[in-house]
Amino acid sequence: MAGEQILKFLDTFENQIRTLKENLNFEEIERLIEAIQKANSIFVLGAGRSGFIAKAFAMRLMHCGYNVYVVGETVTPRIGKDDLLIAISGSGETTSVVNISRKAKEAIGSKLVAITSHNNSSLARISDVVVQIKGKIKTARDEELSKIAPLGTMFELTVMVFLDALIAELMSVRNLTEQDLEGRHAVLE
Amino acid sequence: MAGEQILKFLDTFENQIRTLKENLNFEEIERLIEAIQKANSIFVLGAGRSGFIAKAFAMRLMHCGYNVYVVGETVTPRIGKDDLLIAISGSGETTSVVNISRKAKEAIGSKLVAITSHNNSSLARISDVVVQIKGKIKTARDEELSKIAPLGTMFELTVMVFLDALIAELMSVRNLTEQDLEGRHAVLE
Amino acid sequence: MAGEQILKFLDTFENQIRTLKENLNFEEIERLIEAIQKANSIFVLGAGRSGFIAKAFAMRLMHCGYNVYVVGETVTPRIGKDDLLIAISGSGETTSVVNISRKAKEAIGSKLVAITSHNNSSLARISDVVVQIKGKIKTARDEELSKIAPLGTMFELTVMVFLDALIAELMSVRNLTEQDLEGRHAVLE
Amino acid sequence: MAGEQILKFLDTFENQIRTLKENLNFEEIERLIEAIQKANSIFVLGAGRSGFIAKAFAMRLMHCGYNVYVVGETVTPRIGKDDLLIAISGSGETTSVVNISRKAKEAIGSKLVAITSHNNSSLARISDVVVQIKGKIKTARDEELSKIAPLGTMFELTVMVFLDALIAELMSVRNLTEQDLEGRHAVLE
Repeated sequence: MAGEQILKFLDTFENQIRTLKENLNFEEIERLIEAIQKANSIFVLGAGRSGFIAKAFAMRLMHCGYNVYVVGETVTPRIGKDDLLIAISGSGETTSVVNISRKAKEAIGSKLVAITSHNNSSLARISDVVVQIKGKIKTARDEELSKIAPLGTMFELTVMVFLDALIAELMSVRNLTEQDLEGRHAVLE
Repeated sequence: MAGEQILKFLDTFENQIRTLKENLNFEEIERLIEAIQKANSIFVLGAGRSGFIAKAFAMRLMHCGYNVYVVGETVTPRIGKDDLLIAISGSGETTSVVNISRKAKEAIGSKLVAITSHNNSSLARISDVVVQIKGKIKTARDEELSKIAPLGTMFELTVMVFLDALIAELMSVRNLTEQDLEGRHAVLE
Repeated sequence: MAGEQILKFLDTFENQIRTLKENLNFEEIERLIEAIQKANSIFVLGAGRSGFIAKAFAMRLMHCGYNVYVVGETVTPRIGKDDLLIAISGSGETTSVVNISRKAKEAIGSKLVAITSHNNSSLARISDVVVQIKGKIKTARDEELSKIAPLGTMFELTVMVFLDALIAELMSVRNLTEQDLEGRHAVLE
Repeated sequence: MAGEQILKFLDTFENQIRTLKENLNFEEIERLIEAIQKANSIFVLGAGRSGFIAKAFAMRLMHCGYNVYVVGETVTPRIGKDDLLIAISGSGETTSVVNISRKAKEAIGSKLVAITSHNNSSLARISDVVVQIKGKIKTARDEELSKIAPLGTMFELTVMVFLDALIAELMSVRNLTEQDLEGRHAVLE
């Protein structure tokens, strides 16, 4: 039947959201929010699909009134030591993401937040705040999972959901309404 | 407490996934898969955050071996009448998305799939296949929802999840393994 | 001999630069500079190769310290009536460019500058300032030219050169040194 | 007078084009054309403004019927050993460009073309073909030049002109007319 894999995927993903919820680290989240609130400007970074998610998050941060830039986009200026870099990498080993993050952290002195599945990765080890988002959970059912959620799928979707949940929290912190966001939303598109 | 809105958001989103699952239209999905399988090339289109989701989907279609292009990117060629355009717009009224879709449909004769919340929208009305994805569910609790999931958030996240579920289905249709996808995944990044 | 067409192209292009120089409209340039200097934020817009040139210009404007955004990029906010839109289109008829420019001009009340070959085009007619940059010069030698400079090539290259020349002028107006620009140049790349 | 720096810039640039023409290395060009003609797929790479120029070139290569991809764009697949990477960097030391080029050359075995001002740079040293394009010419008048053509301006513009001249040559090699290119030009924009 057309749709069987879709249903399997949605069951798995519902489970994934429940797991995310049960494993939220509120202390970590508090440090993440603090880093965002204190930053002069926020820069986001990711490769491939993690890059698209970084951009979707950056767009909402802009709607919320933050100064925000995407590494590699046209109008992105020099990062400074009072700025925050948020880097997204499931493995925490994506070459360009690690190299750029290291430069921001070590050469510039910017604050660095990693969003990754691996607390032990090259990216996580140099970060000030690590937000761990589990992707594929390593179990006997792994092989089954790889058929419906290949490569970084689970990590990417879960990060996208988490970051939109974080926007909800930031709206509350900054006392923003949907109308405030609407007022900054691009109309030329 | 830091995190309260995050929890509220995740509860709401878990509910949203359940609703998506219960309302899947398998006939519609079958027509969607048929359109994808029959297309010479697939073009995807979306503005703002829907555009990032269109790109995330296009990347996976490429990993699956489809000829796929993003409207507006560098190497995107002229669309033809044997090609498929997949357009994503929550409202189904985003000016550029509707105009471009109309051109593809009416001037070129391409096949058109709309992914939208509104079956009655300008985009839906000119499409060959309409995949309806509900965003905000209009109820008394709307005001509450706008505080945690502003603007198109619910639509965008749900479409992203749905399209990754669709990839699971397409992998099964084409008998692809994760290794097949890995073999096409960019290594220069 | 490999390179014969390259030489022909370069001869033609050298001629094109000379023609550009001889036909500069200094009054028009003054109005362009005034529009840039007075704008709250500057938005740039172009499709295809004109879009890349718009981005290259936007990057230098950012280096010069202007608030600048590319229509369609992630962090681009809502345009306002005190903002300037600079739209690049050789024909002045590119659908999306004309539609978006019309919206900025008529619905928002932003200032609009057109960079186009055609003073009489849809884009030029709604613009506050029109910078005319000749592309292909219609003569008996047209057929020859289309073999070495197809489609918008001459327009695009000439606009890119003109806009970098304009940066020289803006640096002088704002009394900027190369070091000032270097200080804003992205380091994460 | 408004426009004085514009005139100075155009004089300098006309001179630059003449210098480019006089210093063309036809043997180098022959090897470049051969690499392009023999490649299975062509990948282009550049950071910042060099990246936009790489994209403008890639778009024309697509119009000419080549399989071409931009490193970092959505539909770009895994590069292979029969593919060609064309990397643009004025200094030849841009970190990401050098790292990615090294990976393509050393880990994958792809063919590598460098377009750079520096024959001795990290990028040039690992490349199969080096196309040297002089940017700023180091003389006593350097300080003057930095006021009108800051940073990589001269290199970037000259590369853009050179690559469009190369398109003229490739059209001749492949016996293409403007109509052939028009037939592949995107219509959805």
